[in-house]
Amino acid sequence: MKVLEERIRQEGLILSGTVLKVDSFLNHQVDTELALQIGQEFAAIFGDQPVTKVLTVEASGIQFAMAAGIALGVPFIYAKKNKAVTLSEAVYSAPVHSFTRQEDYRISISRKYLGPEDKVLIIDDFLATGAALVGLCEIIAESGAELLGVGCVIEKSFQEGRGLLEQRGVPVHALARIASMSPGEIHFIDQEELIKESAGC
Amino acid sequence: MKVLEERIRQEGLILSGTVLKVDSFLNHQVDTELALQIGQEFAAIFGDQPVTKVLTVEASGIQFAMAAGIALGVPFIYAKKNKAVTLSEAVYSAPVHSFTRQEDYRISISRKYLGPEDKVLIIDDFLATGAALVGLCEIIAESGAELLGVGCVIEKSFQEGRGLLEQRGVPVHALARIASMSPGEIHFIDQEELIKESAGC
Repeated sequence: MKVLEERIRQEGLILSGTVLKVDSFLNHQVDTELALQIGQEFAAIFGDQPVTKVLTVEASGIQFAMAAGIALGVPFIYAKKNKAVTLSEAVYSAPVHSFTRQEDYRISISRKYLGPEDKVLIIDDFLATGAALVGLCEIIAESGAELLGVGCVIEKSFQEGRGLLEQRGVPVHALARIASMSPGEIHFIDQEELIKESAGC
Repeated sequence: MKVLEERIRQEGLILSGTVLKVDSFLNHQVDTELALQIGQEFAAIFGDQPVTKVLTVEASGIQFAMAAGIALGVPFIYAKKNKAVTLSEAVYSAPVHSFTRQEDYRISISRKYLGPEDKVLIIDDFLATGAALVGLCEIIAESGAELLGVGCVIEKSFQEGRGLLEQRGVPVHALARIASMSPGEIHFIDQEELIKESAGC
């Protein structure tokens, strides 16, 4: 998604080879116009499938799950993060290790809102280590719902997240794929080139 | 907002005289269509003012701040909740006491995204004790921005939040105002009646 790559080039703050801040327009201050376009892009990618619900994890996935839900005409659910496990009602839950914060937590979704009749699209802001997204996959498997795919706004392609999801047979699409970065420099995987190659051009 | 009151009557789960769960359509699973209507309602209420940014607190305010931002054509910012205070860049922050969870935390917003040139609308899902919203008011005051008003989806009118905000001179609008509730029973303040009374009818 060219407009997204351009914004990342213009406004992204690369603090190291692994840390990219995009909080001026994606995940602290949010450009609502761009968020809607991102939702439409996910709908263009996944919209030929019978998605019934979009899933994400609080907090920074919410605006993009909402935008995808708007574009697809379906509700979304955001998994809650808890340190403590006890909740007032029955939930599906999975453990997650945050490499950024070096802490363990659980994500959970009420059993009332996910079941075998659902066909689910996972949406999140970043795909990096994939820890939270693998947790969501476990929750979906436990619920009996069908997982149609994972859509992420930005992928750090040099980290293991995509590999972990693809090992589980999950289709993964990211709107901006970062091959490598360092302060002052960022390289995206040219997705148009990839499409041409896979089409045998 | 009649459609919202009806949904609360149909789907809201009243656990006690103070606890209302609306997580089937507002703040866990989210009805995107209704969320957009809520955004349009806030725009109808506040749209005659020169709002430059919508502010909320993660996580459950995000979908309504996004909807209001869409309807008003402006970006939104969600304040982050932190137990620890140290952050990598300069922030405005304020202490908040959660009565629900009986814990203290801080909310913070990057100084880069809020300043004296901004005219701000606060949006949140619930107005109850008002603790987090008063924290946001303090952050806005510190930034030099102008606070135009507070819009909440649901107000528990029997708690002190509205009073605390009005003491600060802040205009407060809620789309559904609960006068009282107990398991199996809920009473809303009739806002049409209020409008007639204030118009001298």
